[in-house]
Amino acid sequence: MSISSSPVTDIARAARLASVSLQSVTNEQKNEALLRIKQVLAERKDEIFKANEEDKKLAEEQVKAGKLSSSLFKRLDICNGDKFETILSGVSDITKLDDPTKKVTLATKLDTDLQLYRVSVPVGVLLTIFEARPEVVVNISCLALKSGNAVILKGGKEATHTNAVLARVIQDALASLSSSGIPKTAVQIVETREDISALLEQDRYIDMVVPRGSNSLVKYIQNNTRIPVLGHADGICSVYIDKDANIAKAARISVDAKTNYPAACNAAETLLVHRSLLQSDAFKTVAQALLDANVTLKCEAEPKAALAGLGSDKVVDATEDDFYTEFLDHTMAVKVVADVNEAVEHINEHGSKHTDAIVTENGETADFFMTRVDAAGCYWNASTRFADGFRYGFGAEVGVSTNKTHARGPVGLEGLVIYKYRAYGNGNVAGDYGSGKKQYLHEPINASERIL
Amino acid sequence: MSISSSPVTDIARAARLASVSLQSVTNEQKNEALLRIKQVLAERKDEIFKANEEDKKLAEEQVKAGKLSSSLFKRLDICNGDKFETILSGVSDITKLDDPTKKVTLATKLDTDLQLYRVSVPVGVLLTIFEARPEVVVNISCLALKSGNAVILKGGKEATHTNAVLARVIQDALASLSSSGIPKTAVQIVETREDISALLEQDRYIDMVVPRGSNSLVKYIQNNTRIPVLGHADGICSVYIDKDANIAKAARISVDAKTNYPAACNAAETLLVHRSLLQSDAFKTVAQALLDANVTLKCEAEPKAALAGLGSDKVVDATEDDFYTEFLDHTMAVKVVADVNEAVEHINEHGSKHTDAIVTENGETADFFMTRVDAAGCYWNASTRFADGFRYGFGAEVGVSTNKTHARGPVGLEGLVIYKYRAYGNGNVAGDYGSGKKQYLHEPINASERIL
Repeated sequence: MSISSSPVTDIARAARLASVSLQSVTNEQKNEALLRIKQVLAERKDEIFKANEEDKKLAEEQVKAGKLSSSLFKRLDICNGDKFETILSGVSDITKLDDPTKKVTLATKLDTDLQLYRVSVPVGVLLTIFEARPEVVVNISCLALKSGNAVILKGGKEATHTNAVLARVIQDALASLSSSGIPKTAVQIVETREDISALLEQDRYIDMVVPRGSNSLVKYIQNNTRIPVLGHADGICSVYIDKDANIAKAARISVDAKTNYPAACNAAETLLVHRSLLQSDAFKTVAQALLDANVTLKCEAEPKAALAGLGSDKVVDATEDDFYTEFLDHTMAVKVVADVNEAVEHINEHGSKHTDAIVTENGETADFFMTRVDAAGCYWNASTRFADGFRYGFGAEVGVSTNKTHARGPVGLEGLVIYKYRAYGNGNVAGDYGSGKKQYLHEPINASERIL
Repeated sequence: MSISSSPVTDIARAARLASVSLQSVTNEQKNEALLRIKQVLAERKDEIFKANEEDKKLAEEQVKAGKLSSSLFKRLDICNGDKFETILSGVSDITKLDDPTKKVTLATKLDTDLQLYRVSVPVGVLLTIFEARPEVVVNISCLALKSGNAVILKGGKEATHTNAVLARVIQDALASLSSSGIPKTAVQIVETREDISALLEQDRYIDMVVPRGSNSLVKYIQNNTRIPVLGHADGICSVYIDKDANIAKAARISVDAKTNYPAACNAAETLLVHRSLLQSDAFKTVAQALLDANVTLKCEAEPKAALAGLGSDKVVDATEDDFYTEFLDHTMAVKVVADVNEAVEHINEHGSKHTDAIVTENGETADFFMTRVDAAGCYWNASTRFADGFRYGFGAEVGVSTNKTHARGPVGLEGLVIYKYRAYGNGNVAGDYGSGKKQYLHEPINASERIL
């Protein structure tokens, strides 16, 4: 099997070679590189802003022609207010994070002269595909470098000029620090859709895809590559209000989970209500709080009938599809369930394994729910909106993952590392061990936390 | 989006439901179930042997017709010698392993009344596809159950009767323990190739594929599913003999790595030799040891010329493809390199990220090699053959992974778990936190090691 060459293969292979160099870079060198990137970004602010103005001019015409939304245009702008300063301080924030590599997570003496260490190492080469926000170029490059990974970036076409300048500035900053051991090919950018199709096939060189953007973007990537994807397409989160719920908490949590930021993946889309709450004012109280917060309630027949007395035109019919839908606005699908078990079954069948909450004062019921709901986050009496890397205290968020392997939930730098086994021998051979021969010791070694 | 129904979808969904029940099963209940499985297997030995004889009778005809290899036939036989007793003791061995689930790996106080715990949980539903060895039914079912996963099995058609009886016995054992909370659908078996094609598409219900068998089987699966695959196709391991090598160690390690068990994935396929070793007898000494062990050396021009004096007809020409080949027999590809850096580059370009060894007395060179070679195992002065879950002290081996995410190298039960975040609140909502509002505490909690 020989490997054919193409421009994109060359980029991927260069990234792989850069990632090898990055393996032996120290935390100090990585931080020095990040601070240098911050400095050069600041120095070349005018050049960056000029490129951003160029993108915005073209985008403005698109907005006028109705081909681009104004919210997308807004995300494109990095000159406005303190946006650029926020990007810069984000870079120095990353230097303060713990280096996730070189941590010893297992140390075993296999024999007196054969030691085995499991050590965290960078995953290798990341491919990041994102949409209009140009600051992702800076943010993800710095997260990649801090964790010792090389990265290939592809941004949205509306931000082509800005993205290109930002990547060039980062490369120049790395090149100016030749002693750091980080080649400038540690950060590369590609520009066309064809490049992406070709890169998604480079599973020989690329180890992980980190998409940042809309659900349709993530879904497209998941369906078009064999490379592991760190991310989530849908965020279909639920709030289940149990028969033993404190109704004031239930109302607060439901309203926050739905309306605190409806476009976020951790916003709730589904409200599940224990049937017994329809016998009193409990369900009506929660529903009224949501209606007051301008939420449309798409209800199955039973909850709709129960809310008839409220006389709201925001109480409408639900379809089965509504329970598989991420509304991303002030809409919530509402279902009545017989018990916590039916709530769990509904969530496991319809949810996206992101984050689901139960409101109850009953600890046993909460434990049943949290144990059996198959989601990255299972919350008791708390809003689903807490599912976020910064809120979890990770200092940075690479993304939120609904995968069942590698990394799950909000992912910090730890999601960008894996491990390798390093064995230290003295000429040891496997043929010397076995029945009637040498035996393995398998004694834990009191290792220092880091190697090197 | 509604889900269509088919027999295979029903199996996958039943496995998913079983996996939910398994979430709340205790370690004691799991061990009780395993011991019951062992007991029922022993009780129904005659029935199992009868099925095995049936398979062997059919297979014998295939062997006579030249359609089946005798080694495959041998692997099919579970009646021979103490094979069946070994299978049974393997079951009780698994009860002795540490439960990999319910371990707290992070505990943070987000606020005085909001606690966050990261807890290990089963991955969910496993699909195992394997070839003629029927004992995999027992082994992988027990590993799955111990780690709280449901499993769907598909074995080779030569062992159809044996596999079916083993699965039935396991299901009956589970059904006889109704109080254990483990439904018998925790272990299911399918029989046709069409079932597999359909199951590989069930990424909604199946979380991980664990293939056990030939490289071509693993490669087929990797190329035909979006579900994460835990395993390795190729095992192209290398031994690099550095200029500072102790030649006695180099010869011992090379011979063991190649010949201790050539059909294993951790056997070495490539020998890389520092050019300086051609100036003395060093290289010839290593080569002679390999030739004495009946190894054919496929050499590039330079090492071939250096070995001309040995006059062996087992020193032959290598092609570029030989360096991408897993020989699985007494054959080794031989290349001369200028330095450790060229050795690293060769391995990273040609290897399979499995296990690679350096032989040197120079610690700095060893560190350079171990840091920069991108492989699950990087060994200094030890044979690649140590890459094995039992040798690493894991007690059981699910398989060896050459993935770059989730689990790498020999994988024990830890490779069958992931984590979830459990948050315990008191009605907390995200809207209460932020600039000018409540602040997150992010204080570590002194949590007990396990949550229940």
